[in-house]
Amino acid sequence: MQFLSDNAASVHPNVWAAMRAADEADSPYDSDRISAELDDRFAQVFGREVAVLWVATGTAANCLALSAFVPPHGGVVCHREAHIEMDECGAPGFYLHGAKLLLAEGDHAKLTAGSIAEVLDAIRPDVHQVQPHAISITQASEYGCCYTPGELAKIDVLAGERGLKLHMDGARFANAVIHLGRPPAECAGPVDALSFGFVKNGAMNAEAIVFFDPTVADVVRYRRKRAGHLQSKGRFLAAQIMAMLEGDTWLHSAEAANAAARAIGDGAAGRLLHPVEANEVFVRCTAAEREALRRQGFGFYDWGPDAARFVAAWDTREDHASALGKAIATL
Amino acid sequence: MQFLSDNAASVHPNVWAAMRAADEADSPYDSDRISAELDDRFAQVFGREVAVLWVATGTAANCLALSAFVPPHGGVVCHREAHIEMDECGAPGFYLHGAKLLLAEGDHAKLTAGSIAEVLDAIRPDVHQVQPHAISITQASEYGCCYTPGELAKIDVLAGERGLKLHMDGARFANAVIHLGRPPAECAGPVDALSFGFVKNGAMNAEAIVFFDPTVADVVRYRRKRAGHLQSKGRFLAAQIMAMLEGDTWLHSAEAANAAARAIGDGAAGRLLHPVEANEVFVRCTAAEREALRRQGFGFYDWGPDAARFVAAWDTREDHASALGKAIATL
Amino acid sequence: MQFLSDNAASVHPNVWAAMRAADEADSPYDSDRISAELDDRFAQVFGREVAVLWVATGTAANCLALSAFVPPHGGVVCHREAHIEMDECGAPGFYLHGAKLLLAEGDHAKLTAGSIAEVLDAIRPDVHQVQPHAISITQASEYGCCYTPGELAKIDVLAGERGLKLHMDGARFANAVIHLGRPPAECAGPVDALSFGFVKNGAMNAEAIVFFDPTVADVVRYRRKRAGHLQSKGRFLAAQIMAMLEGDTWLHSAEAANAAARAIGDGAAGRLLHPVEANEVFVRCTAAEREALRRQGFGFYDWGPDAARFVAAWDTREDHASALGKAIATL
Amino acid sequence: MQFLSDNAASVHPNVWAAMRAADEADSPYDSDRISAELDDRFAQVFGREVAVLWVATGTAANCLALSAFVPPHGGVVCHREAHIEMDECGAPGFYLHGAKLLLAEGDHAKLTAGSIAEVLDAIRPDVHQVQPHAISITQASEYGCCYTPGELAKIDVLAGERGLKLHMDGARFANAVIHLGRPPAECAGPVDALSFGFVKNGAMNAEAIVFFDPTVADVVRYRRKRAGHLQSKGRFLAAQIMAMLEGDTWLHSAEAANAAARAIGDGAAGRLLHPVEANEVFVRCTAAEREALRRQGFGFYDWGPDAARFVAAWDTREDHASALGKAIATL
Repeated sequence: MQFLSDNAASVHPNVWAAMRAADEADSPYDSDRISAELDDRFAQVFGREVAVLWVATGTAANCLALSAFVPPHGGVVCHREAHIEMDECGAPGFYLHGAKLLLAEGDHAKLTAGSIAEVLDAIRPDVHQVQPHAISITQASEYGCCYTPGELAKIDVLAGERGLKLHMDGARFANAVIHLGRPPAECAGPVDALSFGFVKNGAMNAEAIVFFDPTVADVVRYRRKRAGHLQSKGRFLAAQIMAMLEGDTWLHSAEAANAAARAIGDGAAGRLLHPVEANEVFVRCTAAEREALRRQGFGFYDWGPDAARFVAAWDTREDHASALGKAIATL
Repeated sequence: MQFLSDNAASVHPNVWAAMRAADEADSPYDSDRISAELDDRFAQVFGREVAVLWVATGTAANCLALSAFVPPHGGVVCHREAHIEMDECGAPGFYLHGAKLLLAEGDHAKLTAGSIAEVLDAIRPDVHQVQPHAISITQASEYGCCYTPGELAKIDVLAGERGLKLHMDGARFANAVIHLGRPPAECAGPVDALSFGFVKNGAMNAEAIVFFDPTVADVVRYRRKRAGHLQSKGRFLAAQIMAMLEGDTWLHSAEAANAAARAIGDGAAGRLLHPVEANEVFVRCTAAEREALRRQGFGFYDWGPDAARFVAAWDTREDHASALGKAIATL
Repeated sequence: MQFLSDNAASVHPNVWAAMRAADEADSPYDSDRISAELDDRFAQVFGREVAVLWVATGTAANCLALSAFVPPHGGVVCHREAHIEMDECGAPGFYLHGAKLLLAEGDHAKLTAGSIAEVLDAIRPDVHQVQPHAISITQASEYGCCYTPGELAKIDVLAGERGLKLHMDGARFANAVIHLGRPPAECAGPVDALSFGFVKNGAMNAEAIVFFDPTVADVVRYRRKRAGHLQSKGRFLAAQIMAMLEGDTWLHSAEAANAAARAIGDGAAGRLLHPVEANEVFVRCTAAEREALRRQGFGFYDWGPDAARFVAAWDTREDHASALGKAIATL
Repeated sequence: MQFLSDNAASVHPNVWAAMRAADEADSPYDSDRISAELDDRFAQVFGREVAVLWVATGTAANCLALSAFVPPHGGVVCHREAHIEMDECGAPGFYLHGAKLLLAEGDHAKLTAGSIAEVLDAIRPDVHQVQPHAISITQASEYGCCYTPGELAKIDVLAGERGLKLHMDGARFANAVIHLGRPPAECAGPVDALSFGFVKNGAMNAEAIVFFDPTVADVVRYRRKRAGHLQSKGRFLAAQIMAMLEGDTWLHSAEAANAAARAIGDGAAGRLLHPVEANEVFVRCTAAEREALRRQGFGFYDWGPDAARFVAAWDTREDHASALGKAIATL
């Protein structure tokens, strides 16, 4: 019973079916028929014109998106525990040619307009310090918590005042949409680009970068090629994404994952480090308690010396999740 | 009847089967069981210890391999028509942080020890000019021609004398192995790293970078992650590669493609711009002749004003190829 | 009697005087009183508003100027023998983060609208090839030849049609202005940025980057700092430049150098590889002839096996130049 | 009476004299006679073989030195308030191609083996996090405090254990040598490269990068050129440095600056934020007190809302310094 991560889960049957259906040779790169449908399909999701590029990983999505907004001499405000800061081996430094991440604080790995302003206000507006050009937030956050439309609006006001672009790392965007119970457009709020994740939610290796100003995508197309991310059989990536959107598979998958997380979280009342809003559960527990859980067959990561992280995926079995919840409750 | 390229062909049934078999969740990134088998499997292919990294594209494979050998202030000798120069949107400039491609000549897009030396000898050995650090050759070349073991040996001698590393772009390595009829180790010759292509030969989106000095791979692992090319469900890439190697599928696929190309080439005797050694056929023909072929249902690229390029893939039908050969013969 | 280069000549007395006068501590970087005068001073030179940044070298000037116009995934058309291609150790690759130089032909190291168009027209307008963003020309060229205002106008038309920015490497701009006998504004023509050279003409280590759209300079200020080119005692660079402009010292110095070159060229009639327009003289001569000249005390560089290059500087003695001219005439 | 900074002070008479003496044309770049003497001259200073490169700024010195040790995918441990982090506009990101600064704590802007280890130990040794390759310390620190040979030795042990290179930003190295009263070799300790500052101590625009492994310099020579920092009249930079070393001018200058700082610090007893070891004095004082000092003609920077920074330079007048000290004492 694995709760290590959602990042290596199985592939959704609908995704498999769509990939198989795309087998016949088509035009290469993103000139195939399926890739051509993406812009319109996402325009339906967000209720406005967008331009969409597929890539194979969230790291590539985040960094290519940011590369459209941040010059090499600029900076990006992000949370101290953001994935781009902690888990991408300096990929933003590579893609942004040495631009700098400017680290801000915030509970539950969420930034606030206030915590962002604190970082911005400490920067001298002279050529000796790196000036901010964008803000990157994660929806749901690295601790599985979600920005409400109201919180996004405040950040947007700040971004507007300071002339900053806004990027959202949506590796678990679907989980946030389910939690918030609002249309995707409201959950993305006012961002300029969204890394719309599918891999953790049932796809194999396809993420979408959604540009809300379609002209921006035309620059990033070159950067995607140049980064070796323009696959020649790109139709298989487009097919994954279309399958996930079709019939709201992406929402159903996230709903299942969130429900499993809640089942775990319900058993961990009083021990939770963060509210369980998406599909991750951070539980205070001792090494001995973790050992006890592992002996019962549960797999998960330690989260420092005094906690554990449990992640539910789209394919997590309900009985596994409730078994884990009970096991934690009886620790 | 498409002969546009092999880069968007269908996926081999064995590859599909292997991917499906890998569906169950496993460890993420390249810590899964299939990825763990790659080094040994390729060691069998080449008869010596190697370290192997999967990536999704040939561009990423080429550039990550070169990044291990060439500092940002260095240069790479390659053919004026090499893929890294002509078709990767400056990806080497990105991955090598501004290092320079030093362009050499050679018939059939093949370098020779002599043409490489000509480039090297023209470089002043001072800090004002970019100094060479590596040579990159393509097997089979961009015109579908192959380096013989003897030709490779001469280039190796030169590389040794000048202290240069040797990289091989093997996007169509399988086709070269078939043509040469020699073991893979001889067809790769003395190179330090090989971009071993599978996508054009039946895989979906998995290429292998083979490092003949395994310690080099350990540096490139960081660069792969940093480039957003470390997929979390990497097992699906490893599965593709293993399926292609299993039972010599990679060789059978290339054999079929080469045979189809020969069938086309046989019809084009007297019109060939380059010997047909791999799976590409470059044919001298007028615009009117090309128009005539297209009217018969053949798809292909113009190659300048006076020629056409026909590419056979692993799944090209024999009857299509011989039909094309006959159509050219009767122009 | 040295004619090796003008790049290590002595420093003009007026420059020395101005530097000494700037000794007293002032505000650091470019916030001193002399740096503050540069924009207006150059506005007088060019008869229009400009923004000017000092840097220590022509390489830095060229690359910082280009960095304002060319994104990392873009390209710069320049002559195959341009300094940025041949003699800057890949500095454009560094400053432009891997952008590519797109090499064009042209007699006397001068581009023409036609030769530029030839390069542009060969580029497929797709994401697989690096797209041009700027053109860089050298006034006077690497062979000491000058673009006439008419030639510049044609290049400008092309640049406008193709949406390209125009940069001029003016390491020897003063020499070109003297030769052309036209106002500086006409000699710079329609360029967007000019690397205005002073070092070869009597300064110690100060060049000016002139931006004809002043807003561009504000971005480059950050890049200059980031490249370690914002000197804290920048007043000494500003002082050098102001001294060179004061009383037309820059023009008098170039006049002297050009006159010396003409004296050499006059003795080399029939042997000249390029017209002598600025301060460089390229002379066809055998190894034995070069040996003869060296025995007479003349220092210079071989220019391949069959030629020699003689460069006159601002401080070249007239008698030395005429002696060299005579020596060549009597070979 | 200016105490704003030492970075824009006047130029030492000995430096002026040496520059004038270097006026006559010599070989360009660093092939002149003076540059050729640097290695031996610094070997005398440090009692061991070294290789030395001049550059115009401390930022260039720091970043070029680090570029020899840190690959683009690597990291550099430095103090949270280090100049490379706070005041170089992201120059390390540019020169190291996106490598990351890993920020450590420490009183008085000094790292300790313990605070470095804390940063190192928090880094997961996997490809998802940037791995450290070097440590950069500042002697004297950004708060004017010095590492003792004993403290350096402990850091060296740690660097050895972890396989890290050691770089010292010695913008005020001379001031540290004076304070420590030990030979330069002991004050530099075990570092692999030292940015040996002269500009703040009486030079105009010349700093030295000292490589204690001379072979390293040969790589950096290319990077210096590529960064536009190889001046063609480099003899003037070499002359500045030689003049500063000659007759221990560098030590006499630092002695004067340190003495002036002590005179200020003596008046600020009880208000000092950091011990006065070099030439900087950080004084706790209110806005009203700062205003009072300014009314008396003293120039200086505020250091946050509750403090001021006073910097003495090599040419600070004793009477000015003691006047300031008294003025502070009588606040």
